Amino acid sequence: MLLDEINQVNDIKKIDKSDWNALAEEIRQFLIEKISVTGGHLGSNLGVVELTMALHLALDLPEDKIIWDVGHQSYTHKLLTGRKEGFDNLRKWGGMSGFPKRKESDCDTFDTGHSSTSISAGLGLVKARDLLGEKRTIVAVIGDGSLTGGMAYEAMNNAAKLETNFIIILNDNNMSISENVGGVSKYLNNIRTAAGYLGLKESIYNALMSTPGGDNVVSKIRRAKSSFKQLVIPGMFFEDMGLTYLGPVDGHDIGALVRVLRDAKRVKGAVLIHALTQKGKGYGPAERHPARFHGAEPFDIETGIPSHPRSVANYTDVFSTVMCKLGARDGKVVAITAAMADGTGLKRFRNMYPDRFFDVGIAEQHAVTFAAGLAVGGLKPIVAIYSSFLQRAYDQILHDVCIQNLPVVFAIDRAGLVGSDGETHQGNFDLSYLSQMPNMHVLAPKNKWELSDMLKFALSLGVPVAVRYPRGEAYAGLRDFRAPMELGKAEWIYEEEEIALFAVGSMVKTAEEVRDRLHEKGHWASLINARFVKPMDEEAVLTACGNHRLIVTLEENVACGGYGERVLDCMKSHGKDNLYMNISIPDAFVAHGNVEKLKQELGMDADSVVARILERL
Amino acid sequence: MLLDEINQVNDIKKIDKSDWNALAEEIRQFLIEKISVTGGHLGSNLGVVELTMALHLALDLPEDKIIWDVGHQSYTHKLLTGRKEGFDNLRKWGGMSGFPKRKESDCDTFDTGHSSTSISAGLGLVKARDLLGEKRTIVAVIGDGSLTGGMAYEAMNNAAKLETNFIIILNDNNMSISENVGGVSKYLNNIRTAAGYLGLKESIYNALMSTPGGDNVVSKIRRAKSSFKQLVIPGMFFEDMGLTYLGPVDGHDIGALVRVLRDAKRVKGAVLIHALTQKGKGYGPAERHPARFHGAEPFDIETGIPSHPRSVANYTDVFSTVMCKLGARDGKVVAITAAMADGTGLKRFRNMYPDRFFDVGIAEQHAVTFAAGLAVGGLKPIVAIYSSFLQRAYDQILHDVCIQNLPVVFAIDRAGLVGSDGETHQGNFDLSYLSQMPNMHVLAPKNKWELSDMLKFALSLGVPVAVRYPRGEAYAGLRDFRAPMELGKAEWIYEEEEIALFAVGSMVKTAEEVRDRLHEKGHWASLINARFVKPMDEEAVLTACGNHRLIVTLEENVACGGYGERVLDCMKSHGKDNLYMNISIPDAFVAHGNVEKLKQELGMDADSVVARILERL
Repeated sequence: MLLDEINQVNDIKKIDKSDWNALAEEIRQFLIEKISVTGGHLGSNLGVVELTMALHLALDLPEDKIIWDVGHQSYTHKLLTGRKEGFDNLRKWGGMSGFPKRKESDCDTFDTGHSSTSISAGLGLVKARDLLGEKRTIVAVIGDGSLTGGMAYEAMNNAAKLETNFIIILNDNNMSISENVGGVSKYLNNIRTAAGYLGLKESIYNALMSTPGGDNVVSKIRRAKSSFKQLVIPGMFFEDMGLTYLGPVDGHDIGALVRVLRDAKRVKGAVLIHALTQKGKGYGPAERHPARFHGAEPFDIETGIPSHPRSVANYTDVFSTVMCKLGARDGKVVAITAAMADGTGLKRFRNMYPDRFFDVGIAEQHAVTFAAGLAVGGLKPIVAIYSSFLQRAYDQILHDVCIQNLPVVFAIDRAGLVGSDGETHQGNFDLSYLSQMPNMHVLAPKNKWELSDMLKFALSLGVPVAVRYPRGEAYAGLRDFRAPMELGKAEWIYEEEEIALFAVGSMVKTAEEVRDRLHEKGHWASLINARFVKPMDEEAVLTACGNHRLIVTLEENVACGGYGERVLDCMKSHGKDNLYMNISIPDAFVAHGNVEKLKQELGMDADSVVARILERL
Repeated sequence: MLLDEINQVNDIKKIDKSDWNALAEEIRQFLIEKISVTGGHLGSNLGVVELTMALHLALDLPEDKIIWDVGHQSYTHKLLTGRKEGFDNLRKWGGMSGFPKRKESDCDTFDTGHSSTSISAGLGLVKARDLLGEKRTIVAVIGDGSLTGGMAYEAMNNAAKLETNFIIILNDNNMSISENVGGVSKYLNNIRTAAGYLGLKESIYNALMSTPGGDNVVSKIRRAKSSFKQLVIPGMFFEDMGLTYLGPVDGHDIGALVRVLRDAKRVKGAVLIHALTQKGKGYGPAERHPARFHGAEPFDIETGIPSHPRSVANYTDVFSTVMCKLGARDGKVVAITAAMADGTGLKRFRNMYPDRFFDVGIAEQHAVTFAAGLAVGGLKPIVAIYSSFLQRAYDQILHDVCIQNLPVVFAIDRAGLVGSDGETHQGNFDLSYLSQMPNMHVLAPKNKWELSDMLKFALSLGVPVAVRYPRGEAYAGLRDFRAPMELGKAEWIYEEEEIALFAVGSMVKTAEEVRDRLHEKGHWASLINARFVKPMDEEAVLTACGNHRLIVTLEENVACGGYGERVLDCMKSHGKDNLYMNISIPDAFVAHGNVEKLKQELGMDADSVVARILERL
């Protein structure tokens, strides 16, 4: 096994050139085997095996720096930098992260997770290098999907001014998580498919040179700077941005990649290498179903079928079904996603109502302001974006939706703890960042039926509304509790005295368990489903204060700006001095791990909460 | 006066073509006279007089829709839509806004304020129009400065797919608020200055056609789609994005603009009209000093000199001075601004340390992640962005700076109420959105000396720190209170018993007044300068709880997620049931008006606070 020789950074340089392809094949098999057991990002990693090898061959790590945009494609990089053993505990609590982490290795330059940050970060490293008089090569690797995110352009626009070397590798697999969208994607596709494109340009040049006076035209063109390049270079779009364009190059040809990297290092300025790769390369099921193998659950290698098929519906499924019903009922309902038709569950809506479905690409800012425009135009937009990605659109929600008080509904999946993707993907802030916005309404369902009820209710309100729900299995308990939705009203599930548990969304289930355990210990607890984080049900809180010694709020969100602080504020401003306890996510970033495990670590599982309550009493 | 005939929308259509230029001149004089009295955005408005007239001539308002990016250039539009009288109370409390407001007129399509939103909003209106089977022309007017903002690209990338009409006008004055930056700006400039550019392309075509076999080459080019356009069209960059490019056109030639608009309306798809305009056009001082006349205070028309020259330093001046000192002391200190070298006070730093100054254009997202890269690279970045604009970078602060716990200092000017720019520009949320981020430190100075002390202290911490301070005059009181900065420690200014006033930043001055008035009424109040909103000084709060009946927090920020809620949370979790009162900005957007007036309306001026405290006691 060649892979046995790869135990630390730069070991790859000892591998003979003639064995490069064999090593690539071994790496591919290693990744497929490991990920089939742990789950993880497969397709994107299989796509960049050769590209990563070429980078490690052409660069000197850790002095040289690679920034992986999004970062889920960094597995081969981890493998080549002494982290082979880490794959057995990939994405598990205490195990290796599925993303670059500076604390994991000095070969990980910059932590990533969200899209389109790498050119900005790389440009910062370049400027630091130059000011500190250091010599090193800095490379940002960005996918074509990430190019739909606006900050990549902000960065390219700034990179254009550079007079020192900075290498951007466009890893173009013609996909984001699912199909790519938009003008730039089409443009890249034209480059990919334009057979003879270069030849055509050459024939223009030849025709001109053989014309009487044509050489004059050519020299006029040369003087006009960019015009000549337009005749001979396919990547004019990037040249117009101010970057030097090299490519396209076969992203699975290690030798060619090493050569183009060596050329690129000589450019005094920002240079973009356009590498063509295939997502899922070398594993049939992943090549055929790129979306499914983007972030895969453990699977059977032979068939590609998940090892533990889901038997119960998750919230995404529920959302998917409700959206189709809402779409059928009202032709003004439209759906917007940012490159997540699969992940958000909007695929069915897309198939049923293609005219009313908009995938804007990885472009959360545009998604929200576009939805604001749709709303002003008389439609009823529902924007489905994961909690942590919606952070990108904080200003657009506040500035474009809330100030104008527009009827835009946000369907926020992956709210609260998401588990194995770790810090960058936890949805622990949305209750805070949404509640602080005037005019916004913030709701969270306790179970699958309530998600359905809330979405219908949200559409009927005609104002900005966010409905947030967690990743994973949709709670199917408490089915009998389905009081009609009423603006700003909580739902009393069990009325007792002594302790009042005010729980938000996913924590209702936990609170139900807490209540049972407390009862076993001889304590009585009311259970109130908050439903509305904003506007918060003041009446319910004040009522509870009348006959409960202890008020407890439970939410899967940081304390600062969350539901609990609003409840306490209400109590205090009405002179209620009952005991109070805030169960929420501590003021810290939460690493990767199984959600149940994370809840235990954070003191938010039923056992911990019971212990904390008993201690307080 | 032609202007006398302009009293409501479409009145301009009654003006004879031969009088268009005379009307433009009258509008210009009207704007100069009015703004010289009230203050307001002058340069941008003088630049689009003809463009606005052409839009009103070529379109049918209010059925057709115009979206003004940023919106401060909408004065002529307001004038032409029956709001001439509004200019006497421009930007005053209860008066006309300086930005488009849907509630002001049905000719104002979409409220704007922040940059780069218009194409997204316009695209939403286009899709709504098409789905609802309506017929109307939709126009987004965007400046070349706003094109440095990434969401404009996200939108253009999506507009590329359109098969129905959508007009984007690129109002290219080769400026944002100050000089423009980056590759795209250079590209636009090439188009502006390329005399004979079109001619050159024609000569290539002619040469080819006169070559034996050249016609074959031309027809090959035609088949290759975009290649032929590259030979004849200057705006290839936009064509590559998927837009139809028309221009460049003289943005001060009303006839030409009307013609190109009529052409543009016939395009089935997204079309970009490139109009060349001059900021400040027709008023010498504004042409010469575009940055100064961007947002102008009242001025003398003859000389252009401010009518009421500032006599006292504002916080921006203090920041400016401190930055130069910090730059001199440490070569690793670098400064980043997003198109606001003037507004943030970084101009002097730029002039002294050009290599360590980075203006990234209107690109707050990039600014923050770029700073994160600089920090990883070993430098000490200070990012100066106004509070409301920093909202754009919420995710980058959280995801790129805080998760990695990087030493990036944020200098946040215009925090709290900013006054005459209104809803979109108030900095009422930063304490909340920053405090909810783990690892972030949030500070606010009470006076000018403390701003200086805090910036030095912030740099020394080596972690993410935000220092926020208000627009306008730097408080020069309490000079004798300058206890050394200590992490997480508040500053006790006056120690009494009965009432404890915990004030944040700008509210320390107010609290000082409150304390005096309370004393007159026979009450004793301690005054504590919070200094740190995060980490909040728990010890100070608990100490105060020991001998004060009432704890009051005062902050220029919304309550949700702010300082007061943290204080109350601390009190409660330590079992302190003292009376408590939260003085903060209510959960509503705050319209334009003088800051003092706004504070009265919000119950945050000293009189109101005293009254509220007395009522509570």
